[in-house]
Amino acid sequence: MRISNEKMGIAMKRVMMKVAYEGTAYCGWQVQPNGLSVEEVLNTALSELLGEDIKVIGASRTDAGVHARGNIAVFDTEASIPGDKISFALNQRLPDDIVIQGSREVAADFHPRHCESEKTYEYRILNTTFNDPIRRNFTHFYYVPLDVSLMREGASYLVGEHDFSSFCAPKTQVNSFVRNIIAIDIFKEEEEIVIRIKGNGFLYNMVRIIAGTLIEVGRGMIEPAGVKAILEAKDRTKAGPTAPARGLTLMNIELI
Amino acid sequence: MRISNEKMGIAMKRVMMKVAYEGTAYCGWQVQPNGLSVEEVLNTALSELLGEDIKVIGASRTDAGVHARGNIAVFDTEASIPGDKISFALNQRLPDDIVIQGSREVAADFHPRHCESEKTYEYRILNTTFNDPIRRNFTHFYYVPLDVSLMREGASYLVGEHDFSSFCAPKTQVNSFVRNIIAIDIFKEEEEIVIRIKGNGFLYNMVRIIAGTLIEVGRGMIEPAGVKAILEAKDRTKAGPTAPARGLTLMNIELI
Repeated sequence: MRISNEKMGIAMKRVMMKVAYEGTAYCGWQVQPNGLSVEEVLNTALSELLGEDIKVIGASRTDAGVHARGNIAVFDTEASIPGDKISFALNQRLPDDIVIQGSREVAADFHPRHCESEKTYEYRILNTTFNDPIRRNFTHFYYVPLDVSLMREGASYLVGEHDFSSFCAPKTQVNSFVRNIIAIDIFKEEEEIVIRIKGNGFLYNMVRIIAGTLIEVGRGMIEPAGVKAILEAKDRTKAGPTAPARGLTLMNIELI
Repeated sequence: MRISNEKMGIAMKRVMMKVAYEGTAYCGWQVQPNGLSVEEVLNTALSELLGEDIKVIGASRTDAGVHARGNIAVFDTEASIPGDKISFALNQRLPDDIVIQGSREVAADFHPRHCESEKTYEYRILNTTFNDPIRRNFTHFYYVPLDVSLMREGASYLVGEHDFSSFCAPKTQVNSFVRNIIAIDIFKEEEEIVIRIKGNGFLYNMVRIIAGTLIEVGRGMIEPAGVKAILEAKDRTKAGPTAPARGLTLMNIELI
């Protein structure tokens, strides 16, 4: 597919894209001095495609190894190519592990991190005796049998608006540790335990620390009611470990 | 884990293993002059583990890029390590994309290709507008919408004992092209169309040619009843293309 790079005197427009990627090979979303990021790959491919210096703004700056089915990125361009055609043209220039799922023009002042949104993450635990090579990059293999009903009971204390200091990586600088978890669903899909969390904002490593804590609950090391005590302690050292990145996928960002 | 390699004067025994792998990085099951095979990786790791020259025999010699959740391999050893412990010890020495799912001792004359068995394969088609990077190595991305009910009707003609010459790679040397398909189930899982085929033997590329033909049926290029005509023609050129390896997984081999 040939795309014309000629400027046709058209004014600047802002384009929003839905971005899916396997995070295994990347140092995360955000540009880093050491390692290739998803953001950098998008900037390079878009700049080549559109003949401009493009810098995308991501809604969620996912960590190294974390996957996305629906992250959001926006960028500004003067190019004449219609916003909804950019996904198809850009996919021709992207590596196999990043695929744009759609694109469209949005308001010039739309910013994906300064708007109301609901994010849904899934954390997948492969709870079997042996790892599955086909799912190894997309699930956290954990061979100690976990009790899903205990995990559900523990998770119930996290739903709602709380100070999540205990579930945030140390030294994170934010104005407030209060976040609102709208729902946590925990269910089994064959041998996988899926923790689906929906909220309107998450602290650094929050979903992975929740997953790591609920695994401790599921194996009987923490009582379900202990999750309430951990929350109230506002102390990261009281919660469980940060579960590995590979089990985490940003499923969807709903703009509200 | 330390495994003793000392011979304890124990007689030769035959061990059967259930083998799972992501086939993406391999030239297939069978040892080839150009490229790394699953068989070669197993031979090397087992020979190092057991201190003997081990050669495995596989039940199904899957092609390059084809995956397995339950292939079967057997080998003979004089080592003292119990058959059911070999899976755990061997997994420590295997790359991430090959995982033994269990092992046990079997009769000395058991041969995985000279016994009655039922094999189940799944062929997965990702039928969406955009590819999914997370599933790209495990599904065949096909963006033309497919009609599952037409595919089911077409598949119905293949069930039972037939001469499958039309569904076999050219120049395959076998005594007979007659095989028995026990069942074909076609169903949707989210945006994936799964073709699940169970039979007691398959010709070279047979499942992939069936998948390629049913895709033609699903998009309306071949009438469902055309599958019966293709079968009766006993001519490979009448069937659809060989669908890509990445969508195919050997799910299970049931010894009967």
